Amino acid sequence: MKNILLLGAGRSASSLITYLLQQAPTENWHIKIGDIVVTHLHPILADLPCAEAIVFDIHNNEQREAEIKQADLVISLLPAVFHIEVAKECLKQEKHLITASYVTPAFLELHAEAQAKNLTILMESGLDPGIDHMSAMSAIKHIQAKGGKLTSFRSYCGGLVAPESDTNPWNYKFTWNPRNVVLAGQGSAKYIQNGGYKYIPYHQLFRRTETIFVEGYGNFEGYANRDSLSYREPYNLLDIPTMLRGTLRKPGYCAAWDVFVQLGLTDDSYTLEGSENMTNRSYLEAFLPPVANDQTIEQRLADYLSIDAESEVMQKLTWLDLFSEKHVELAGATPAQVLEKILKEKLQLAPGDKDMIVMQHLFAYELAGEKHELTSSLVVIGDDEVHTAMAKTVGLPVAILAKLLLQGKISNRGVVIPIHPELYEPVLEELKSYGVNFIEHDTVLSKV
Amino acid sequence: MKNILLLGAGRSASSLITYLLQQAPTENWHIKIGDIVVTHLHPILADLPCAEAIVFDIHNNEQREAEIKQADLVISLLPAVFHIEVAKECLKQEKHLITASYVTPAFLELHAEAQAKNLTILMESGLDPGIDHMSAMSAIKHIQAKGGKLTSFRSYCGGLVAPESDTNPWNYKFTWNPRNVVLAGQGSAKYIQNGGYKYIPYHQLFRRTETIFVEGYGNFEGYANRDSLSYREPYNLLDIPTMLRGTLRKPGYCAAWDVFVQLGLTDDSYTLEGSENMTNRSYLEAFLPPVANDQTIEQRLADYLSIDAESEVMQKLTWLDLFSEKHVELAGATPAQVLEKILKEKLQLAPGDKDMIVMQHLFAYELAGEKHELTSSLVVIGDDEVHTAMAKTVGLPVAILAKLLLQGKISNRGVVIPIHPELYEPVLEELKSYGVNFIEHDTVLSKV
Repeated sequence: MKNILLLGAGRSASSLITYLLQQAPTENWHIKIGDIVVTHLHPILADLPCAEAIVFDIHNNEQREAEIKQADLVISLLPAVFHIEVAKECLKQEKHLITASYVTPAFLELHAEAQAKNLTILMESGLDPGIDHMSAMSAIKHIQAKGGKLTSFRSYCGGLVAPESDTNPWNYKFTWNPRNVVLAGQGSAKYIQNGGYKYIPYHQLFRRTETIFVEGYGNFEGYANRDSLSYREPYNLLDIPTMLRGTLRKPGYCAAWDVFVQLGLTDDSYTLEGSENMTNRSYLEAFLPPVANDQTIEQRLADYLSIDAESEVMQKLTWLDLFSEKHVELAGATPAQVLEKILKEKLQLAPGDKDMIVMQHLFAYELAGEKHELTSSLVVIGDDEVHTAMAKTVGLPVAILAKLLLQGKISNRGVVIPIHPELYEPVLEELKSYGVNFIEHDTVLSKV
Repeated sequence: MKNILLLGAGRSASSLITYLLQQAPTENWHIKIGDIVVTHLHPILADLPCAEAIVFDIHNNEQREAEIKQADLVISLLPAVFHIEVAKECLKQEKHLITASYVTPAFLELHAEAQAKNLTILMESGLDPGIDHMSAMSAIKHIQAKGGKLTSFRSYCGGLVAPESDTNPWNYKFTWNPRNVVLAGQGSAKYIQNGGYKYIPYHQLFRRTETIFVEGYGNFEGYANRDSLSYREPYNLLDIPTMLRGTLRKPGYCAAWDVFVQLGLTDDSYTLEGSENMTNRSYLEAFLPPVANDQTIEQRLADYLSIDAESEVMQKLTWLDLFSEKHVELAGATPAQVLEKILKEKLQLAPGDKDMIVMQHLFAYELAGEKHELTSSLVVIGDDEVHTAMAKTVGLPVAILAKLLLQGKISNRGVVIPIHPELYEPVLEELKSYGVNFIEHDTVLSKV
């Protein structure tokens, strides 16, 4: 019997929990699931002797210590900020840990101790980061094994809404933390193209998009992520002339989002005076230059940002009720918090709605005097608004890696990310049976 | 005999030192001037028994304690970050202190102790903040005394180059810390207009300028400062419908500076890869979208930002050598640090150059059924590149306040700014004899 302690039972944990419960009898697992609220788990776990749910408070040191003591493996889907406390307790009690979050400098400091204690702290094991690493490393290894020389690697990922549930002019619904969507891209984006470093300030980010085509799903637009450069080292592509990572949206989204950026609505650094008395319309007006004449706010916005008043961008803004006299009802709010509230009222998944994960890697490489382009594309559609594609693609790789770790099939120790074949090969293989499957196209473009 | 300890003997201290030395015999002062480098003071102080220069290191606790102990009054023109240490030592040893810097929250914490010890910590006593407070409060008091009701207060200030030394297409030279000029306006600007709060994000700031006319000097353009709102409380104008503070430049400056902002060149939050190998031209190129064709960088920049290739903006950029292959020669530099270096090579005051301070307050008020506009304008021209208008307008009010304090004519205790008549009236009066003189125009605009 192996004891798994899963911390975090929110929306993104649904597929992970389902997988663990399915495998528990065969694998001889006992699963304890802890979160602040676990009532939603009671019907699911009612008749299952292999699993139980407990109210768990990460800030309760005694409970954290006691529960981790009983586990053989800890999986944490808690908010990323709590992982370091969990990791330190796991180290103290010599337990393995898996999370879907980024390795931070604080985690790097634990590497040596984890290695010395023969422990694995497996991070970046969800979708992005996670499946992106695994699928990229698989393709890179394949190209390099046949003698190909990589000259360009661009990689895009987006959490979107499935075509059958795409019912709004933004062609977008939230499938992840809306706050992160509102703040996305702040800071400067950095990448390298044809050997030259490129920097995009935030206020140009949503104007400098690329078109990405995915077979069967048409065109998307991609904007650059903040940091494309740090991926060169783990992928062992330090000399690659072009490396870019980006986020996918449906065409037209970025031009409309750019209005928020240009106005300053995504600013989270100060609070608005009297936000509790604002309507959507007066909120918007606070960011427009004052005028002496009687122009409508719609016309003033269109003039200010040189947008056609009849354009799709204006239609998207109107559909959001951005020009309405609806009350904001948020006190002491930042511009970004008000925007998040306005968006949440319109862009939530409805019951039965299906989300969609799209990931595409685009490699250019030279082989035997020819230039190749390899695209590797993944599309995953959710089952409904709870069992989302996001939950599948974040939870299943974590779950499969948990199984491999408990089966003793992972020998990497220390703080590890899934860039090693013994990790990503079995995960990518098993993911296929859950419909998480990359489609590759290799095209010869020209002679070098 | 009163002992004055002046900390900081940099460029901005020249007029302050001259004033103190002139007044010393009459006032029976001994002046000790401390800074890391004081060799430039030796010729000035050589034959003066009333003054001496010492090498002073603010980080040397013993020296700080010993020197403050001997003083009756401390004046600090050190970089603002060091003032709090000086203030704490002054409190400990029960000495008065004057600075030209902003009251920060750390200073507010000293208020009660300073009051209890019957000490004055006089802050914001230079130009801006300083003369702005004094002249604004004087005008406000005057309007209110005759029964006027203030409806609008806009106030602009700029450190510029005098017409006779204005020799470049930017109509600008540095008269103050260039780094602060490069970073000016970052964050969001906040003000209130006709009772409505207004927020301008940084990337719109240099596009939303106003034209300000100063008799005898023509038009200027003003962009909003970060925080216009916090001035309402000290000026006792909490209900004023319009309050805006801004920075003045010559027309055309802001449109050209906006190119830096739009490109991201003023970003100080990350370092450029390989900045030590960059030329001005390759630095610029890193912020332009990549293109496949053979367009020049000049054309790419013009296209990207929709600027006419023959425009004055492009001429300003070309004049700065921004498109040249001149080497940057800065390792590990942020975009803002590289920009500062490029600007410093072209925008310094040359020997004999005169700078110019321009300040204008614009008040609207209602009196006896009529709407008035009162403008109060100050122009100060420097003597040369050392005895600048900036040094006069920063140093003289500090010096005059020092005299008043030592003469026992200031009774305000605690952390004080010069918004009280007993402070600003004698200072404004004495400043006139140094050519620092506001010209007022009151115009009746219309019936209310």
